[in-house]
Amino acid sequence: MPRKVDHDERRQQVVDIARRLIEKEGVDAATVRRVAEEAGCSTTIVSHYFANKHQLLLLIYRRASEGAKDRVRDVLDRSPGDIEACLEALLPMDEPRRRDWHVWFAFWGMAIGDTEFAHEHRTYLREVTRILAGVLQHRFGGRNRTHMYRREGQRLFALVSGIAMQAVFDAQTLPVSRLKSLIATESERLTRVYGIAPEGLP
Amino acid sequence: MPRKVDHDERRQQVVDIARRLIEKEGVDAATVRRVAEEAGCSTTIVSHYFANKHQLLLLIYRRASEGAKDRVRDVLDRSPGDIEACLEALLPMDEPRRRDWHVWFAFWGMAIGDTEFAHEHRTYLREVTRILAGVLQHRFGGRNRTHMYRREGQRLFALVSGIAMQAVFDAQTLPVSRLKSLIATESERLTRVYGIAPEGLP
Repeated sequence: MPRKVDHDERRQQVVDIARRLIEKEGVDAATVRRVAEEAGCSTTIVSHYFANKHQLLLLIYRRASEGAKDRVRDVLDRSPGDIEACLEALLPMDEPRRRDWHVWFAFWGMAIGDTEFAHEHRTYLREVTRILAGVLQHRFGGRNRTHMYRREGQRLFALVSGIAMQAVFDAQTLPVSRLKSLIATESERLTRVYGIAPEGLP
Repeated sequence: MPRKVDHDERRQQVVDIARRLIEKEGVDAATVRRVAEEAGCSTTIVSHYFANKHQLLLLIYRRASEGAKDRVRDVLDRSPGDIEACLEALLPMDEPRRRDWHVWFAFWGMAIGDTEFAHEHRTYLREVTRILAGVLQHRFGGRNRTHMYRREGQRLFALVSGIAMQAVFDAQTLPVSRLKSLIATESERLTRVYGIAPEGLP
């Protein structure tokens, strides 16, 4: 039993260290050697927990993506039609959300030419699109709008990704206040295009 | 004289090989060893042309970015207010444009925690935003709109980046026809927000 706990803890520690390295210094920093150094153990031990760097990156990507989906789910548990809060949950409004984007950028670069990574990312994209489309359906209602909302969800996540990229590399031009005003503009546009939100929703 | 030509040719060849490797297999594929193999020369020769992988990537990034700006300039030489054609010049509508995005994704991942890369990318972002703002000014005119058009340029490039990312990783969901319909939707929105295009413009 203690052996199992130790194993899980060590594994968790190794993932956390690798993730922090990627967030801070980019994907090249997360070498088995560097992780071992920071964890204070041998490269043999680090290699034991992960078949290779590939598996390690996949795990870190999944953790960032699950974290983002959890934030969105928290929003929707409270208010299932709150598209503005969903966009806020995804955008790099604070350090943890900014760090998620660092992980995603690192992953996209790796996913070019890597079938497994590309598939993983495609699956995530479709899932986020579906979630956002569901929020729009809840917010604006209407029949036969599934296709329309899916396209809008795709468009919204594209805008979020591109804005996040600019905000990460140019925080001066895109501070948090500007991210908020972008969300407000999108909110107005959505209402104009899809109708007035039913009473009680933002 | 021939010696100089040989040097430039070899340098060009090395950059081209590294770029093709990144475009096809991601940034990890572009090792000095691999480039030397494909160029049919020693790693010593490849290393001679580039201080390190860092410089090589910077050169490849610059080439992709300059290529994109050249495509936009070609559009604007013909029709200075044609924002739709600018967006088409940037989006991954064909293989060469798609390959540019592969290079950018690879670079963003590297630019996290790399001051020189991050600065390079920030400069490019601001330049593209300024170009797009200029196109909007030409197309829709109006006084005191500099700030507004700069924000719109930022927003448009964000949308382009996010859509490109989705199109690269999910070409099935975002085929070229869908990219064209997204441009058409943006075109309508811009006209609605900023006014009717002066006669003679699309």
